[in-house]
This record gives sequence, C-alpha cells and structure tokens, in this order.
Amino acid sequence: MQAALMRTRIAIVGAGPAGLMLAHLLYLRGIDAVVLERRSQEYVERRVRAGVLEHPTVELLREAGVADRLDREGMPHHGLSLRFDGEDHRIALADLTGRSITVYGQQEVVKDLIAARRKTGEPLHFEVSDVAIDVDAPAVTFTDAEGKPQRLDCDFVVGCDGSHGVSRASMPAATYAHEYPFAWLGVLAKAPPSHSELIYTYHERGFALHSMRSPEITRLYLQVPPDERLDDWSDGRIWDELGRRLAASGFTLSTGPILEKSITTMRSVVTEPMRHGRLFLAGDAAHIVPPTGAKGMNLAIADVRVLAEALERYFASGSTDLLDAYSDTCLRRVWRAEHFSWWMTSMLHQAPDADAFQRRLQLSQLRYVATSTAAATSLAENYVGL
Amino acid sequence: MQAALMRTRIAIVGAGPAGLMLAHLLYLRGIDAVVLERRSQEYVERRVRAGVLEHPTVELLREAGVADRLDREGMPHHGLSLRFDGEDHRIALADLTGRSITVYGQQEVVKDLIAARRKTGEPLHFEVSDVAIDVDAPAVTFTDAEGKPQRLDCDFVVGCDGSHGVSRASMPAATYAHEYPFAWLGVLAKAPPSHSELIYTYHERGFALHSMRSPEITRLYLQVPPDERLDDWSDGRIWDELGRRLAASGFTLSTGPILEKSITTMRSVVTEPMRHGRLFLAGDAAHIVPPTGAKGMNLAIADVRVLAEALERYFASGSTDLLDAYSDTCLRRVWRAEHFSWWMTSMLHQAPDADAFQRRLQLSQLRYVATSTAAATSLAENYVGL
Repeated sequence: MQAALMRTRIAIVGAGPAGLMLAHLLYLRGIDAVVLERRSQEYVERRVRAGVLEHPTVELLREAGVADRLDREGMPHHGLSLRFDGEDHRIALADLTGRSITVYGQQEVVKDLIAARRKTGEPLHFEVSDVAIDVDAPAVTFTDAEGKPQRLDCDFVVGCDGSHGVSRASMPAATYAHEYPFAWLGVLAKAPPSHSELIYTYHERGFALHSMRSPEITRLYLQVPPDERLDDWSDGRIWDELGRRLAASGFTLSTGPILEKSITTMRSVVTEPMRHGRLFLAGDAAHIVPPTGAKGMNLAIADVRVLAEALERYFASGSTDLLDAYSDTCLRRVWRAEHFSWWMTSMLHQAPDADAFQRRLQLSQLRYVATSTAAATSLAENYVGL
Repeated sequence: MQAALMRTRIAIVGAGPAGLMLAHLLYLRGIDAVVLERRSQEYVERRVRAGVLEHPTVELLREAGVADRLDREGMPHHGLSLRFDGEDHRIALADLTGRSITVYGQQEVVKDLIAARRKTGEPLHFEVSDVAIDVDAPAVTFTDAEGKPQRLDCDFVVGCDGSHGVSRASMPAATYAHEYPFAWLGVLAKAPPSHSELIYTYHERGFALHSMRSPEITRLYLQVPPDERLDDWSDGRIWDELGRRLAASGFTLSTGPILEKSITTMRSVVTEPMRHGRLFLAGDAAHIVPPTGAKGMNLAIADVRVLAEALERYFASGSTDLLDAYSDTCLRRVWRAEHFSWWMTSMLHQAPDADAFQRRLQLSQLRYVATSTAAATSLAENYVGL
C-alpha cells in the first residue's frame, strides 16, 4: 500500500504536555503543525502524572489562552512543609520569592490542550503506529488509526514522545543518567487533603509525600525499594505506612477509597545535545527527573516555549540563531532542575546504603533549610521556577 | 616515686586553640585551670594548620583581649572566589552577610594565646607525658617535663587534645565518621599571593585552593589521592600542577621557594555526646571536619566559649543547666559545620568514582551558587560563621 502524502512545517511526535503545548504555541504564531500520538485520546487524558505547576508554567498557559479551567480549578499554594522529627517546617514560597505554585494535574493540562487543539481544527492524530523519523528528509512515516500508511513531510520534527520514544532513538547524542536506589508508591485516594499544602516528609522508615489533586482527592506517595511489587501493598498496608511516616503533632491523616496505585522508579536522564539536524527533542524525550522536585512537566513546557520562539524567528526571518541556541538554552535549565531534583531527593529519602553519619547530615541540612532564610529561599526559588 | 599532688578547678588536656582559649576565658572569669600539653611550645607554635577565622571567632578573640596582633597582621577578606571553567565567580561575603573573615594562621593564634597565658603566670605545662584521665575522681595523672609523676585533682577535665588524644579514648560515646576518597597536598611558599582573596577551584584534574598567610607567604593546596606519597611531588611538579588547575583568564600564579609541604587526609568525625560525667571534649577531640569549609579551629573556639560560660555559671550559682546543655548546644553547630564542609568538599572535588552525570551536577551547582543571591548567601553565611 502506497503511503498517503501529507505536508506540514512541524511534525510533532507525541501528544503529552510538550507536544500539545508546542502545537498550540505554533498555532498562535501561525505555524502549521501535525501532532502524532501512539496512544488513544482517552489514555493520555487519564494518565496520572505530576500535579504541580511552576509559576512560569502557569504564566505561559495564561498567555497562551489555555488557562481558563486552570484558573477556576487549580489550587494556588503559597507554601509547602518539610516534616521531620514529627514537626512541620513551612517554606513560605510566596513570601520568599513573590511567586507561588499551582496544584493542577498533568492530565488536566493535557485535556485543556486537546480541547484547544480540537477547537482550532488543526491536525492531532491519536492511535498512530509504526512511527519512524527520517531526520534527513525530514519526514515522519506512520500508520494511521485506520491502518493506512502515511508519510508526513515537514521542515522540522520535534520529538515529544518520552524517554522510550522513537525520537530519542532516532538521534545520536550523549546520555547522562543516574538511577536512584528507591521508587515511589503513589496512590490517588478519594479523601479530602489532610492539610492545605504539600508535606515533604523525612522519616526513618522512608520518605512520604502528602499532596492533592482537588478538595476531594488526595495524592500520597511512599518511598519503597526499587523492586517493590504493588501486589504486596494492600490498601490497609498503604494507609498504615502513611500513618506511621506522616505522624505529626496535630495532624490527622484523612483516609478513603484508593482510586489508583502505581510504583514509579526514580531516575535522572539528560540527552546532550537536544537537537540533531532537523530533529529537536523536548520534555521527557530529552530529560527525565525524579519526581521529588515536581519539575518534569514544567521542564517540558519550558522547552517548547523556547522552541516555539526559535521556530517563529526562523520562519519570519530565516535566522537560525535561536534554533542553534535551543539545546544550550534548555540544557542550562535542565541541569539546574536535575541538580535541584537530586538535592531534594537526597535530602529526603533513606538511601539503603546510607550510614548514621549521612543520616545526621540529612537532618542537619533539613534543620538548616527550615531555619535559614537564604537556604529556604534557595529551595523556594527552585521550586516555584527560576 | 610518689606523685606530687596539685589541685585546680579545671584540668585542660591539650594546648591547641581550644585548650589555650578555654584557659584564657576561664582566667578572665576568675576560674583557675591548669593546661597540660604533650608537645613542646616550639612545636605547637610552628604547627601549620588552618588560617581562616570566622567573624564570631575574631569577635571573641577581641572581647578576650587577645587580638592586638591579629588586628595588626590579620588580613580581613570581604569575599572569596569560586573558579571553574577558567573564570572567577566572586562570593561577596561582606555584602551578602554583613560579615567578613580574617586570614590569620592558627599557629599565630596559638602564639598569642601562649603569650597571654605566660603574662598571667597561670600554669601551662609543655612536654608532659603518660597523661591519664580518671573521670570519676576526677583527676589527671601525668609525668612532667622533668620526669616527675604528677597528679592533678580537679572539678572537671576538659579534653582538647585532638581526635587521637587520651581524652576521647577515656569516654564512652558514639562516633559518626566519614572518610573522603582524596587528600590535600598543602604547600607554604615564599611568594606573594597571586590574588587578594581565596580561590576555591573546581578543575577536572582535581580541586585546588589558593590561599595565603601574609603579603609574602602563599598557602596552596592540591587534591591528591588519599594514599599519595609526598616524595612523588617535587617542587617543580607541584608548581606545574598548580599552574594547570589554577589557570584562568588574567591570572598569573606567583611562585617561590616552597617552605613546607605536607599531605592531609580528609575525614569527618563527630563524637556524641561531647561529655561524659566530669569530662568534657572540645575542638578536634570531639569533631573533625575536612578543611574545605575552614571550620576546624572556628568550631574549637566556639566550643570553649560555650563551655567557659557554662563553667562560670556553675561556679557562680551551682547551676548545672548550661553544663548539661553543653553537648547539645555545641553539636547543633558541629553538625551544621559538618554538613557545610561536606557540601563544599563534594561540590569542589573530583571523586574517583564520580560519573559524567555527577560531574555535570557539580557544575550546575557551582553555576547556581555563582548566580543565585540566595545560594551565594547560603554559602557565605556558613563560611563567615552563623
């Protein structure tokens, strides 16, 4: 069967936050793009991921006109707590930096961006398969949802299809990676949040995080060994363990039916450079952070902001300067986020090989961050987005 | 031979900065003490050690009236540099914290304190041997410089005789320790400093530090493997290596005859608690830090300030509350310094087992510290003394 021929300026592989946001930013700049996604629309809209938007991410979503529901339903947070020794130590994000974060699930951002794309009528294809990238042409070939082979010719391909996607595999680049010796067991529970803000908990039994998705839905995490089996964690055991680790004076953990549970391994990955000829990587396709710093989706959105501006300049003036700078521009922020995520992770988790000296260093650092304005500001400015 | 009997309130074992400063602070409070030192006066006055005094250390030496020469000869520094990628990034200590540091060799502090002790005519015995501590009596037995056995009865013994001294060995306590996988080769050179401030250098060949002791004497350090042999480092090789690591635009390394060279292993040790009955530990006897943060002597001086106040209160009122709090009060600062020293060390050294990811994290952290006011303030406030 001969491939049907299509043509666009930008072929975007992947309809997560990076791909969808890039498509929208390009649309606003009058640059046509086609988005291809392997999964179904239902799948990507339900995929539970991060839920903390940095200040610059919220600003960009607003500027791009896709923040109406975010502004109604998102939960602005002006602080977070570090909990250790059974006490909360609040980091006053807004007082320290003038900026806040907004709790709003990644899948909600994805829903909003899909709705925006649908409204424009511009191409967004789900359930495509056999995606292959010809970097030199450039072009993307794939089989569409109806089983027909397609060839999409373009000026540039942008890979937004995650770390295991075809885009990353289609380019030569160095990989810098780090595996953390633990994982997160995450649960979504039908229970009102037990506290109005996030609580990052250091505990001798392992890290725990209290977060939320809405006034009715709590999001909770437990540090577990990297090879832990979900089957070994009954709902009862999960609540028991959360209760132990999150115990603090004046704190009562609200419980309720667990709607979803999953285990996420923790790793850091950076691809350098983020470009090969006419193929650009954005978001998870280029870099992975452990979830502790809540940076994954925010980095993805920051990448495509830079890329949309660079593409606009190229199509307006023929100048490649911003496109040529794309990788370096993004990697500076990526490495900052990698370091911050590593730092938060190292400070808060129990490493299996840590000795008593290292645990005391962790506690000394936690006490310092909780009592020094400079150290708290350093955490805060990284958390809300530099 | 029957031991001659002496009696004092405070028996101080060790005439380093901790022991001598404690003796002086007690003298000012009218509390008699005897200082015992295994080495000769010449030895302790020539022992080359640290050379950076924190702001609170300088303040205390002034308050105690032993800072006349320090104020004439000490070199106040209002900043230091982080050097990486061949560029200097200045941390403006004074602008960021309102405080400065003073470069003044530890052996100069020791000389000043010995002179002050001599002026008072109070007991200070060098070259004693066979020191043994009877914690229960309490008492210290020893052989004096003339070979006569002596027994010193007292109310309290304070161990200021370093991590390998008899004091630490005389008490049960937990030890928290960490070995770093590198050492410092330090040289004292008859060469004017190449720069007016300290330069902490991150380099792929290993850490280097440019410091000084006076307008004519430079102090320089090179990271080397922990088992390095001094014999393998000719003066020529040392200057070559310093030249490579310290290379930066607009920088010329002044050279000159090397007056002294030595290799120091790097380790962290904390003893908890710092007290056992009537025996107290202070300074290196209780804790060791790697030299990167320049905290060793400053911690020693801070310990004895707390202890002198506690002893004054005890002898004035009989209250043991400050004595009982001594260990906890000191350990909070000690762990802060341990963490800061570990942090500076980890950021600046090449660990033999570090991979490319970790080296990029180091560079990201250095860039962040050099560009974020919060992060620079965090370094600065720890460096000048919290």
